Amino acid sequence: PDSAAVEGAQARNAALTKPPGALSRLEDLAIWYAGWRGDARPEMAEPQVIVFAGNHGVAARGVSAFPPEVTVQMVANFRAGGAAINQLADTFGASMDVVELDLDRPTGDFTEGPAMDEEEFVAAMAAGWQAVNPAAGVLVTGEMGIGNTTTAAAVAAALYGGGAEIWVGRGTGVTDEALSRKRAVVDAGLALHSDALDDPLDVLRCLGGRELAAMAGAILAARHHRVPVILDGFICCASAAVLEAAAPGTLDHAVAGHVSAEGAHAALLSRLNKVPLLSLGLRLGEGTGAALAIGVLKGAIACHSGMATFGEAGVSEA
Amino acid sequence: PDSAAVEGAQARNAALTKPPGALSRLEDLAIWYAGWRGDARPEMAEPQVIVFAGNHGVAARGVSAFPPEVTVQMVANFRAGGAAINQLADTFGASMDVVELDLDRPTGDFTEGPAMDEEEFVAAMAAGWQAVNPAAGVLVTGEMGIGNTTTAAAVAAALYGGGAEIWVGRGTGVTDEALSRKRAVVDAGLALHSDALDDPLDVLRCLGGRELAAMAGAILAARHHRVPVILDGFICCASAAVLEAAAPGTLDHAVAGHVSAEGAHAALLSRLNKVPLLSLGLRLGEGTGAALAIGVLKGAIACHSGMATFGEAGVSEA
Repeated sequence: PDSAAVEGAQARNAALTKPPGALSRLEDLAIWYAGWRGDARPEMAEPQVIVFAGNHGVAARGVSAFPPEVTVQMVANFRAGGAAINQLADTFGASMDVVELDLDRPTGDFTEGPAMDEEEFVAAMAAGWQAVNPAAGVLVTGEMGIGNTTTAAAVAAALYGGGAEIWVGRGTGVTDEALSRKRAVVDAGLALHSDALDDPLDVLRCLGGRELAAMAGAILAARHHRVPVILDGFICCASAAVLEAAAPGTLDHAVAGHVSAEGAHAALLSRLNKVPLLSLGLRLGEGTGAALAIGVLKGAIACHSGMATFGEAGVSEA
Repeated sequence: PDSAAVEGAQARNAALTKPPGALSRLEDLAIWYAGWRGDARPEMAEPQVIVFAGNHGVAARGVSAFPPEVTVQMVANFRAGGAAINQLADTFGASMDVVELDLDRPTGDFTEGPAMDEEEFVAAMAAGWQAVNPAAGVLVTGEMGIGNTTTAAAVAAALYGGGAEIWVGRGTGVTDEALSRKRAVVDAGLALHSDALDDPLDVLRCLGGRELAAMAGAILAARHHRVPVILDGFICCASAAVLEAAAPGTLDHAVAGHVSAEGAHAALLSRLNKVPLLSLGLRLGEGTGAALAIGVLKGAIACHSGMATFGEAGVSEA
């Protein structure tokens, strides 16, 4: 962040027509945003939502309530404008891109081998990097991929320890039996790849998925372009956590949009030291929780950059 | 609410392309909104924000960090577009009206007599009723009035008991000494008007203020016109609580936009059985927290009314 812009934004914030601190989190957001944009009184350019879609070898193991073909069906729904994320992107004035990652070629089943080889992994990260609009005002990375709460749980467990018990939840709503299968699959993956778990990027390659790798690439690209990021739910945050584990501070340009109902999301946010902007029980993915938080960020920036100062308005101070 | 619209909205919600319940609170909001609008697939017409401003006899007792003239100065700021609420109304596409209630004639000091006589009280409620646009898609009632956390605390204490200790907080940020004064003022008001405390409307008349009475009138008018309401912070909710105390269920057309940093607001929401949509530490009033929540409601309605069903999108169900 640009320290002159941060200082300028702090000074402006202190002069606005409100009691000091009365807008609380909105003030923090605006100052943070000013720093990353290098502008003490920023405007927000059009936000960008990117939904990355991938298919997972482990989906064949019955870890989801939905069949694997739903990934490609939902991509068609995104393109036709019929999904939840389309409505939220529209509501908050965001552009929306959909990036399909080799949907006809699922990743390898991580209980049998690495999800991706080096080439596939790099290609997925690069696809994410390239999808980012450098002129976007803020980036939301969403995902779609039947089976991907299982891969995200495996990644989180590999990064933070604790095994499947802590990190595996019900995703889109699996039965008790499928939950047990998810846990067994994750523990099997952790055991098979135990030699790779010291390197966060290798964790992502062996246990993650193409859409998780793409989100990581996009979040890095956003930082490169000084585009602030709003993190979405458990899967997005598992992907982002890989970056933070690889180099602490990498996510300083990101805020947590919401905490989802997926049990381990709150634990993951806590490991990332991110306090969510919203807590509305969502558990859909696609970027929906983060897209909803665009509204909060827009409100914060509008107040910061649009309000009058005490001097301008002729209002007496305390 | 219209039960056919509620049932229609529930049926539609169950068919949308998402796992059941995955949008959680957004689904509840959309169904609630559909019921009050009498439309199973509603659109949201332009929201209306009304900021009511009043002056308070008790302000002379040093209960605020700001001098009483700030009320009229802030009204000028609202009219010039320079306050926080102006920016948030713009951000979420709301119209904004400012209603000044006899600013040159503060209410009576409630430690010496009733804040308003019958005529003044009815006039203030009527001003609130008349300010509501019957065609609004949702109503936010905000307020400005130096000293009005003191009046709101007195109203809440009168309705729910517990005395000043529980209900008086720091408002815009008073010192320890002023906090003690606020508590003493509230306790003195409760003692003086102890005979009037059984009738919630008399509580509002004796201990409240014109902007609190106007908000109550506006919230009632909104119900009459089937305009859903988003409640703001402590002062708005103290005003709304009078209606609920007078006739339980009166606030069924209202949701809590946020929980503020004013300590007693959470306690007040809990008495009203309202779970706030946002919790961002705001403590500004003006309707700011509720205006920010317009974005959440817009997102909920956009998803409900804009998403494709499983059948329309050709997506396999679980």
